[in-house]
Amino acid sequence: MKLLRVGPAGAERPALVDQDGTLRDLSALVDDVDGALLADGSALDRIRAALAAGVLPALDPTGLRVGPPVGRIGKVVCIGLNYHGHAAEVGAAVPEEPVVFLKAADTVVGPDDTVLVPRGSVKTDWEVELAVVIGRTARYLETDEEALAHVAGDAVAHDVSEREFQIERGGTWDKGKNCETFNPLGPWLVTADEIPDPQDLGLRLWVNGELKQEGHTSDQIFTVAQVVRYVSRFMTLYPGDVINTGTPAGVAMGQPEPKPYLRAGDVVELEVEGLGRQRQELKGA
Amino acid sequence: MKLLRVGPAGAERPALVDQDGTLRDLSALVDDVDGALLADGSALDRIRAALAAGVLPALDPTGLRVGPPVGRIGKVVCIGLNYHGHAAEVGAAVPEEPVVFLKAADTVVGPDDTVLVPRGSVKTDWEVELAVVIGRTARYLETDEEALAHVAGDAVAHDVSEREFQIERGGTWDKGKNCETFNPLGPWLVTADEIPDPQDLGLRLWVNGELKQEGHTSDQIFTVAQVVRYVSRFMTLYPGDVINTGTPAGVAMGQPEPKPYLRAGDVVELEVEGLGRQRQELKGA
Repeated sequence: MKLLRVGPAGAERPALVDQDGTLRDLSALVDDVDGALLADGSALDRIRAALAAGVLPALDPTGLRVGPPVGRIGKVVCIGLNYHGHAAEVGAAVPEEPVVFLKAADTVVGPDDTVLVPRGSVKTDWEVELAVVIGRTARYLETDEEALAHVAGDAVAHDVSEREFQIERGGTWDKGKNCETFNPLGPWLVTADEIPDPQDLGLRLWVNGELKQEGHTSDQIFTVAQVVRYVSRFMTLYPGDVINTGTPAGVAMGQPEPKPYLRAGDVVELEVEGLGRQRQELKGA
Repeated sequence: MKLLRVGPAGAERPALVDQDGTLRDLSALVDDVDGALLADGSALDRIRAALAAGVLPALDPTGLRVGPPVGRIGKVVCIGLNYHGHAAEVGAAVPEEPVVFLKAADTVVGPDDTVLVPRGSVKTDWEVELAVVIGRTARYLETDEEALAHVAGDAVAHDVSEREFQIERGGTWDKGKNCETFNPLGPWLVTADEIPDPQDLGLRLWVNGELKQEGHTSDQIFTVAQVVRYVSRFMTLYPGDVINTGTPAGVAMGQPEPKPYLRAGDVVELEVEGLGRQRQELKGA
């Protein structure tokens, strides 16, 4: 299923997109698409049954904002330098184990919401990513199979990054990863049963119509299953937590000087195969 | 006021401790002690009026668990290496600007809850800290006065840290800062009007009764006001967000070999002047 949340920021309602591309309202069945729903197999079964029975009311998408596909996100865990091509373009060694950092959940916005270039920023960069959403509480997972069984579904994430704040201002990367609006997510949460192989997905990102990133999850250094298993040894993952699994080659930082960092007025579009497409305009904060 | 939350984990009720040390129930007045309450001056005024009028019912503290003093925390921002003594003991240079990292809000537990030593951990360390809780949404603050006006109050935080995970496993510090139960907070949120000077507070921490840390916020490299102002340039702070402002000298990592890292069975006690005292037993995860 393609689950999503539509409506004004902070007041989204649960919905889905059916096989014909029709938007259908889920408000009568569930409160929200969030960790509680994802952890509740019987609620998901009720949605599947209602979808099959054709009883879900259609929603008019005209003028309707799409929000992040998951409400009440607890945390966003990110994996750095997780594609061979990206590690190479920024001159980094292939990590021996996953590089982990965090984004605050309050950075998450809808897939087509405005992205703010922070005040004083001259190095705002793009990163298309495959995000996975956790469906079951995960601690000290031991096998890849177990790890994948804790994933509720997948989504497109834009891990917007300010490179000066991230790398040149001392300390960890978090200063450049947590600016307001820096994590567009969605449009959909595609449930894991509809993604036969998370290591077989193409990713693409355009800036002002020009293709900048074209990658494939087969280039990941650590697979989705390995990442989930690894992270669960260091922190407990809860239903509704998100993991951004890294970006392929093609970011601004990896290009020759003058590097084409983002400015107010730019338009970024990005997609992951089968997971939908995002489009953001950049504005000054 | 000393605001707090008491009751079973996940089902705490709002309360306060009055001038005589009596625990009083706030459930009839407010839903929770959280960002929404802290941002609502009129709700805080109603609590003050009820306290002055002596109409708040007393609660029997016997056997009552104390939870974290803030519910629905969005994010925990931490400042690393922010005391001259601590930077010196770990051999780090005095940072030119604040070192920032994040803890997920799901690491926050009550002040006397069990702390779990992660599986495989041999370097679990302690850090007593002054935490500040944000009361108003803060973006791009310009002055120290403005920064302090965005602080709702202060609390004791224990920034538990696994040093091998933090430093020796590649990437940022976040792997060693986000293990389950790694951020005891409380017992109280003491409102800012009762803390005349956040740079004039003593901090102490004991392990198994032996004093390990004895510091003072006058040793902070960046003051609370400077920290809040600085962080607001890189991320938006929301009511209910917490900032752990750093730890003074005396952590296990700073001591001669063999460094006395924590083990299951150890008891850690810590306090900040005027903000109360915590006590945690360590257990294996």
